[in-house]
Amino acid sequence: MVSLEAKLRIAVFGVGRMGQRHATNVAYSTPRAQLVAVCHIKTEALEWAKANLPEGTKYYSDPAECLADPDVDAVLIASVTSSHPELTLEAIKAGKHVLCEKPISISIEESIPVVKAAAEHPEVKVMIGFSRRYDASYRETKGRIEAGQLGTPYLIKSATNDQYDPSGFFIAYSKLSGAIFMDCGIHDIDIARWLLDVENPKKLSKPKKQVTRVFATGLNAQHPELANDGDCDNGLAVVDFENGTKCTFHLSRTATHGHDCFCEVFGTDGKIIVNGNPTMSRVEIRDSHGVRTESTPNYYDRFREAFVTEVNTFTECVLDDKPVPTTAQSALDAAVIASALTYSFRNEKPIYFDDNGNPILN
Amino acid sequence: MVSLEAKLRIAVFGVGRMGQRHATNVAYSTPRAQLVAVCHIKTEALEWAKANLPEGTKYYSDPAECLADPDVDAVLIASVTSSHPELTLEAIKAGKHVLCEKPISISIEESIPVVKAAAEHPEVKVMIGFSRRYDASYRETKGRIEAGQLGTPYLIKSATNDQYDPSGFFIAYSKLSGAIFMDCGIHDIDIARWLLDVENPKKLSKPKKQVTRVFATGLNAQHPELANDGDCDNGLAVVDFENGTKCTFHLSRTATHGHDCFCEVFGTDGKIIVNGNPTMSRVEIRDSHGVRTESTPNYYDRFREAFVTEVNTFTECVLDDKPVPTTAQSALDAAVIASALTYSFRNEKPIYFDDNGNPILN
Amino acid sequence: MVSLEAKLRIAVFGVGRMGQRHATNVAYSTPRAQLVAVCHIKTEALEWAKANLPEGTKYYSDPAECLADPDVDAVLIASVTSSHPELTLEAIKAGKHVLCEKPISISIEESIPVVKAAAEHPEVKVMIGFSRRYDASYRETKGRIEAGQLGTPYLIKSATNDQYDPSGFFIAYSKLSGAIFMDCGIHDIDIARWLLDVENPKKLSKPKKQVTRVFATGLNAQHPELANDGDCDNGLAVVDFENGTKCTFHLSRTATHGHDCFCEVFGTDGKIIVNGNPTMSRVEIRDSHGVRTESTPNYYDRFREAFVTEVNTFTECVLDDKPVPTTAQSALDAAVIASALTYSFRNEKPIYFDDNGNPILN
Amino acid sequence: MVSLEAKLRIAVFGVGRMGQRHATNVAYSTPRAQLVAVCHIKTEALEWAKANLPEGTKYYSDPAECLADPDVDAVLIASVTSSHPELTLEAIKAGKHVLCEKPISISIEESIPVVKAAAEHPEVKVMIGFSRRYDASYRETKGRIEAGQLGTPYLIKSATNDQYDPSGFFIAYSKLSGAIFMDCGIHDIDIARWLLDVENPKKLSKPKKQVTRVFATGLNAQHPELANDGDCDNGLAVVDFENGTKCTFHLSRTATHGHDCFCEVFGTDGKIIVNGNPTMSRVEIRDSHGVRTESTPNYYDRFREAFVTEVNTFTECVLDDKPVPTTAQSALDAAVIASALTYSFRNEKPIYFDDNGNPILN
Repeated sequence: MVSLEAKLRIAVFGVGRMGQRHATNVAYSTPRAQLVAVCHIKTEALEWAKANLPEGTKYYSDPAECLADPDVDAVLIASVTSSHPELTLEAIKAGKHVLCEKPISISIEESIPVVKAAAEHPEVKVMIGFSRRYDASYRETKGRIEAGQLGTPYLIKSATNDQYDPSGFFIAYSKLSGAIFMDCGIHDIDIARWLLDVENPKKLSKPKKQVTRVFATGLNAQHPELANDGDCDNGLAVVDFENGTKCTFHLSRTATHGHDCFCEVFGTDGKIIVNGNPTMSRVEIRDSHGVRTESTPNYYDRFREAFVTEVNTFTECVLDDKPVPTTAQSALDAAVIASALTYSFRNEKPIYFDDNGNPILN
Repeated sequence: MVSLEAKLRIAVFGVGRMGQRHATNVAYSTPRAQLVAVCHIKTEALEWAKANLPEGTKYYSDPAECLADPDVDAVLIASVTSSHPELTLEAIKAGKHVLCEKPISISIEESIPVVKAAAEHPEVKVMIGFSRRYDASYRETKGRIEAGQLGTPYLIKSATNDQYDPSGFFIAYSKLSGAIFMDCGIHDIDIARWLLDVENPKKLSKPKKQVTRVFATGLNAQHPELANDGDCDNGLAVVDFENGTKCTFHLSRTATHGHDCFCEVFGTDGKIIVNGNPTMSRVEIRDSHGVRTESTPNYYDRFREAFVTEVNTFTECVLDDKPVPTTAQSALDAAVIASALTYSFRNEKPIYFDDNGNPILN
Repeated sequence: MVSLEAKLRIAVFGVGRMGQRHATNVAYSTPRAQLVAVCHIKTEALEWAKANLPEGTKYYSDPAECLADPDVDAVLIASVTSSHPELTLEAIKAGKHVLCEKPISISIEESIPVVKAAAEHPEVKVMIGFSRRYDASYRETKGRIEAGQLGTPYLIKSATNDQYDPSGFFIAYSKLSGAIFMDCGIHDIDIARWLLDVENPKKLSKPKKQVTRVFATGLNAQHPELANDGDCDNGLAVVDFENGTKCTFHLSRTATHGHDCFCEVFGTDGKIIVNGNPTMSRVEIRDSHGVRTESTPNYYDRFREAFVTEVNTFTECVLDDKPVPTTAQSALDAAVIASALTYSFRNEKPIYFDDNGNPILN
Repeated sequence: MVSLEAKLRIAVFGVGRMGQRHATNVAYSTPRAQLVAVCHIKTEALEWAKANLPEGTKYYSDPAECLADPDVDAVLIASVTSSHPELTLEAIKAGKHVLCEKPISISIEESIPVVKAAAEHPEVKVMIGFSRRYDASYRETKGRIEAGQLGTPYLIKSATNDQYDPSGFFIAYSKLSGAIFMDCGIHDIDIARWLLDVENPKKLSKPKKQVTRVFATGLNAQHPELANDGDCDNGLAVVDFENGTKCTFHLSRTATHGHDCFCEVFGTDGKIIVNGNPTMSRVEIRDSHGVRTESTPNYYDRFREAFVTEVNTFTECVLDDKPVPTTAQSALDAAVIASALTYSFRNEKPIYFDDNGNPILN
C-alpha cells in the first residue's frame, strides 16, 4: 500500500496528446505523487489543463521559470521530442528529478550529453519513459524468466504493428520521428535487451560490447514515397547479441485490425507469448463475420495502465531512493541499435559492432 | 475529462478486506471524489487505515458520529452484510448519499424498508454495489445490445465459478451469505435482468410481473455437509422472464483453474461471450504442460477496475444529479429471484410468480 | 494397422444426403469393409450411386431382395427415420449385422421391439449411429476421464446449436424428427450418459433407475409457429442422474455463426471443454472485422471424420466379435430421456422417474 | 465425387516410416488409385507390408523389376533421400508417373538432371511431395488470397519449430538431411513462393530472377556440437523476392510444447495466421496447470490429412491430365534458396542473386 510521507511534487512539461494523459495520471492516479505545475508554451493547451486538472495547479509557459519553482521536485517531460535533450539537461542542472518520454532524442549525438549529465548527477533520478517495460504482462514475463520458468532464454521475436492510418499522418511524422526502426523499433529493442539480459557483464567477453551485428530490411506496402526519406512502412530486423542470444522484430504501419504488439520469448524449457491476440476487452462476438474479437486500436489503449505504473515507479524510485529501471544509458544503448538498424536498412548490409560497443559504419 | 467543481466527500464504513479496497480507490483513484473519513468499530482496522490512507482522513468508530459529520456528503458502506440495512437507513435519514456493497441484506424482509426509504428520499442517491455492471466488458456488451448488434437478445447463459478453496472457508461463510443462489448468483441475476431489459414495461403484460418461473437444482461435488444448511457447492438455475427471454446460470465453488465468471448472450443476429477465457494477463506459456494461460484467482482480480468505475459512477451520479444504474429496487428485484431459486432448490420444484411480482411459495 | 482376413461386406440402405456420405465412406475409407450393395426405392438416388460408387456394386430397390443376398454380411441403414425399426428388425431376422443411423425411432414404443430383437440375437451385432461418440475429441475426453485426469466428474454442460437456416427447413422437418429434444438433444444425452458413466450399476441404488428427474423449457427466438407442434427453436434441459451427477444442455436452431456443438465436463480436479471455438480450419483472419475464425457450417463438417470412425468401429466389432459401443439399449435409454424432456417442456413441469427407469407422466 | 474410369495403379518404393504411411494411404484412402506393388530392399520392411497391406499387392526388392511391371502406372518414391534422383530418373525413363517425397536431393547438382528429365517427358507427370501445400488450411489461405481477401500480400512470417527430442536424433540426421535450412526450411520456402506468387512473370523485371537476396543466421540453444557440421538448432532467415515481397522464417528443433508450424501472411487488407495454436484436437483442459491445450507432437500428426490429399491430387493430375502443383522445377527453385540460406548462415553474409536466378557465392 502507501506510506504517508510527503508526496513527490511533479511538474508536467508539454500537455499535447501524451502530455495530457501524463498530467491526468499524475493528478488522479498516483497515490504518492501530486501534480503541482504544468508548463506549455501554447496557451490553448493550458486551457485544456485549466479545465481538466485539479485546482491549485500552477501554470507556466516558460520552462526556466517552472524549473525555478521550489515547489517542483520533479519534472515529467512530454513535450515534442526535439526539446527533450535541452529540457532534461536544464532540469538536471536545476536539481529536479526527470521522467522523460522516450526517446531522449532521435540523434545519438544529442543523447550523449544527457547520459553524461545523468551519470554526473547521481543525486537526481533520470528515467526515460520506456512504457512497455511497465506493462503488467511484460513484467510478468520478466518475472517468469528470472524464476527460471523458461530455462535459458535464447531468442525473442517481436512485432509492433500499428493500425494503418489512411490519412498518411505517419508519413509527415516519419521525418521527425527518426524513421521506423528508431520511432517504433526502439521499444522492441529495449524489451529484448531487458528480457535477454544483454547488459549482464557476466555474459560478455568484452565489457562494452553487447551487440555483435544487426541487419535490417524493409518494404513499403502502402506508401512508396517513404523511400524518399529513407523510411519504410514495414521493417524487419535481426539483432545478434554478444551474449549469444538473438532477436528479430517486425515493425509496421499497415495493420488493418488494430495495434498489434506481439512478443515471443523462446527458452530452452518453454516459450512465452505476450499479446498473442491484441483484444480490446473480454468480449467475443459470434455472428456472420465469424468468431471474433476487436483489437486495441492504438498503443495507448494497449498500454494505458503501463503509463500509470511508469509514473508510480518513477515516484517510488525518487521517494525511496531506488535505481530507475529505464536509465538514460539504457535508452542510449537501445538508440544506438535502432540507429545501426536504420543504417543497415538504408545501406542494405549487416552492420557489425566494435569492442567499444559502437557500430562500424563504412 | 474532469470538471473542477467541489469534490464529493466520501466516508467509508468498514475497512475489512473489501472496505480497504474501496477506501484506497476513493483515496487515490477518483478524480471527482475524496476520502474524508473512515468508520470502523475495531481499532486494528483503523491502524491499517492510518498507515495507508491520506493524511487528513478522519477516523470514527461510531457510525452515528460519522453520519453527523457535516464534511461527509456520502457514505460507502462496506461493513458486514448484516449491518447494511440499518446503516443505509441511518445514512438516508442523515441526508447522506449511499453506495452500499451488495446485497442490501440476505433477507428480503430487511431489504424492503431500505427500498422504501430510498424511494421516499429522491434527494439522496442510493446505489447498490453490483460491481459486475461496472466492468468494461459487460458495459461494452450492453452497448452492443443497445446498438442492435445482436438483433433481439433472447437468452443468457452465465456462470460464476469460484476457485476451489480446500480450506472450506466458504462453508462457514455459507451460513452468513445466504447460500449460493443469493451470495453468488445475485450477480448473474442482476446482469441478466439488465442485459435482457426485463424491467422494461413495454415488454410486460402486467406491470409488476417480470418473472414467470424459476427452477433450481444443485449438487455437492466437494462438500456434502453443505446440504445440512440447504446449500450446495454447485447450483444450476433457469429463470423465465415475463418478456419472453430466459436465463440459465451455473454457480460453483469448485473450479480448479481460478475464478471463472462467464456470460453468453444470445440474440437473433449473433451472440456475445464475456470472458470465455478468464486470463490473468496477456501472457501465454507454451511448455511441457501445453499451450496455456493462467486465470484470475478470484473475483477481485477479475473485477478490480470495475470497483473503481463503480465509485466513479456513483460520484458522477451525485455530482451531476443522474439516476444511479443499480438502484435499491433493482437489488431487491434480483434478491427476490435469488430467494425464489433458493426455495426452488430446497423444495425441488419450480416456483411461479404472481401478478404482483411475488413468488408463490407453497 | 490392418489384418488381411476377409472384409466385411456391407449394403447401404438409403442413399439420400446422409446415405451418400455413408456409402462413400464404406466404399473408400474402410480398410476392412467393402461396399457390396446399395438399396434405395427411388431410381434417381441410384443414379447418383452408379456414377459415384465403385464398379461392381449391386443395386436394389427392394430391401427384402437386398437382405436375401448372401454376399451381404451387414447393412448400414440410412433411410428415412420412419423406416428404421422395420428394416432393422428384418435385417436381424435375416442374420445381417446392423449399423442403423440414429434414432431407432422417434417413438419409444417402436424402438422397444428393436432392442428386444437385438437382445435375442447376440450373434448379430446391432449398433446405433451415435456419431458424436466416435469423434476424436470426445473419445479423448472419455480417455482422460478414465485416466482420472478430471478426478470425479460431476456435471456436464453441453450445447448443440445449429446454424440458423432462414428457409425454415427445420420447421417442416420438426414434425418428422420428434422435436428438438429428441432430434437434436439425443446426442447430448447420449454423450452425457457415456461420459458420466450413468449406466454403471456400482453407482446405482436401484439397478434399473439411471435418471432421477428431468426438466425442460424452451422458447422460440425466430419461429413462434413451432409452438403449434409442441416444438421450439431453443430448448434448455436439466437432467439429474441417479449416480449423483447432472447435465444441462441448450439446443438451438438459431446460431448465426455456424454449427456450434459444445461440451464442458466438470470434475473435481479440472474440467474439459470440447470445441470451445467451432473452427472450420486452422486459419485465423485479422482484418477490419476483427481477429476471427470461421465456424463449421453444419454438423457434418464438424463430424465428418467421426462417421468414418463409426463405420470402421462397426466393422471391427463384427470382424473381431467385440461388443458395440452404442447399443440399441443405450439408444433407447437416451430416447426415453429425450421423450421425458419433451413431455416436461410441453407440460411445463419436472418429470420424475420410477424405480424401473420409466418416467412418471401424469 | 468419384468417376468410374480405371484406377491409377501405384507402386510404393520404400516402406520405412513415411513409406508405410504412404502405402497405407494409397491402399485405403484413395478412391481413384490402388496400391499394386511395394518395393523395398530389406525383407523386414516387406514383412510389415505383407501383414498390413491388401491381399494381391505385389512385392519387389529390385526397383528395376518393379519399374518393368506393366501393371504399374505410377510410382510413389518414399525411400531414403539419397535414392530419390536415380529412382526418379529411372521411373521417368520407364514411362511411369512419379510422386517423389521431398526433396529431390539435398544437392542442387543432383536435382538438376531430374528437373531436365521431367521437362523432356511431359507425357509423364512428375510431382514432388511438398505435403504442406496439400494441407486444407494452407489451401484455404491460397484461396482467400486469390479471392482478394487480403488485398495485396506483401510479407510472410513463418516458423517450423519441431518438438525437442532430447535423444539428439536430429544431430546425426543433420548430416544426411542437408542442415536445417534445407531439411526443414524448404517447406517454408515453398509455401512462401506459392502464396506470394513469386514465379509470376508479370511481376518480374527479369524473367529468371525470382529472388533478390537472402540472409540467414542461427544459434544453438541445445546442441553446440551442430556447429561442427555447419548446422544449428535454431535458424532465422530473411528472403527478399524480386516481386517486392519478403518472407522471414524461424526454424527450430527445440520447441518443448510440440511441433509448432506457424504461418502469417500479411496483405494490405488483412492478414491470415495459419495454426496460431498447434492444437492436437478440439479438447481444452482447465485445471491447476491453467487453461490449456495439447499440441501436435510432430509434423505427421499435424499434416496427416495433407498426405492423403497429396496422393489424391497426384492421382487426379495423372488421370485427368492436369498440371501437377508441385513440380520438380519448383522444388529445385526452393532448394536453390535453401542452399543459398545455408551458405549465408555459414559465411555470415547476405547472398545476392544474379539475373539468371543463381546465387552469387563468393
